[in-house]
Amino acid sequence: MIVTEIGTVESDGTPLIRLKIHEEFWDASINVHHFSHLIVLWWISEKDSLENRGNLADIPPTQGAENSGIFASRSPNRPSPIGHTIVKLLGVDEESNSLLIDHLDAFDGTPIIDIKPYLPSSDRVDDTKVPPWFEDLKKRYTN
Amino acid sequence: MIVTEIGTVESDGTPLIRLKIHEEFWDASINVHHFSHLIVLWWISEKDSLENRGNLADIPPTQGAENSGIFASRSPNRPSPIGHTIVKLLGVDEESNSLLIDHLDAFDGTPIIDIKPYLPSSDRVDDTKVPPWFEDLKKRYTN
Repeated sequence: MIVTEIGTVESDGTPLIRLKIHEEFWDASINVHHFSHLIVLWWISEKDSLENRGNLADIPPTQGAENSGIFASRSPNRPSPIGHTIVKLLGVDEESNSLLIDHLDAFDGTPIIDIKPYLPSSDRVDDTKVPPWFEDLKKRYTN
Repeated sequence: MIVTEIGTVESDGTPLIRLKIHEEFWDASINVHHFSHLIVLWWISEKDSLENRGNLADIPPTQGAENSGIFASRSPNRPSPIGHTIVKLLGVDEESNSLLIDHLDAFDGTPIIDIKPYLPSSDRVDDTKVPPWFEDLKKRYTN
């Protein structure tokens, strides 16, 4: 099961990030401007080692956190090192084949492997339960 | 960039689905019972062909939909055939190394490649914009 790199992250340290799409995949952006938010799947390349991929549990970096399996943690050290980030789409730059987004915690040059539109009908959950150590995380897009 | 199969989907046609985790990855489930919802990443194996992976745009199966790139569509035909589904966690079966969930639109035996906890702080978006042809989709977890 081999994933395809469809583009790379362009980051210069500012919050504004560019998803630079490889030219041969740019047609995948048709009508993306209709969406306010996207799901970005990226390859956590700096953690793609045998050792990191063998990690199954660790302690999340939040107050009072207990040792948690990676199904209960967003640790970048996981058997399939896939990053999953919900982002706001700020613009579509046809000149440079780029999508402009508001944030992404990935280094410059990181491979992007998929981009999906955020559909509130299936991706938004209003009534959730999380453990105490994740209750006070800063909210990004909730009222 | 090679993904790891951490388990497989067990589906007998009823809505209740089991994510059967391979024994060597079961420690990844520590503390997962604290979460109400999960993000399941799975391999769309029946669409993993050169032809399907070369698809960059199609018409979503909703009323009035326009031809849309795969960044603007949840089509299973995409360069990296990764399925992304938000599910409700119904139970953890330690006996059979399985997570019980409420739905997953994948065939029996489909490879699971990652499971992440759903964090409303970063995964929930209250104010979204989608094109008209996605506005009337049935809501799964929103009030």
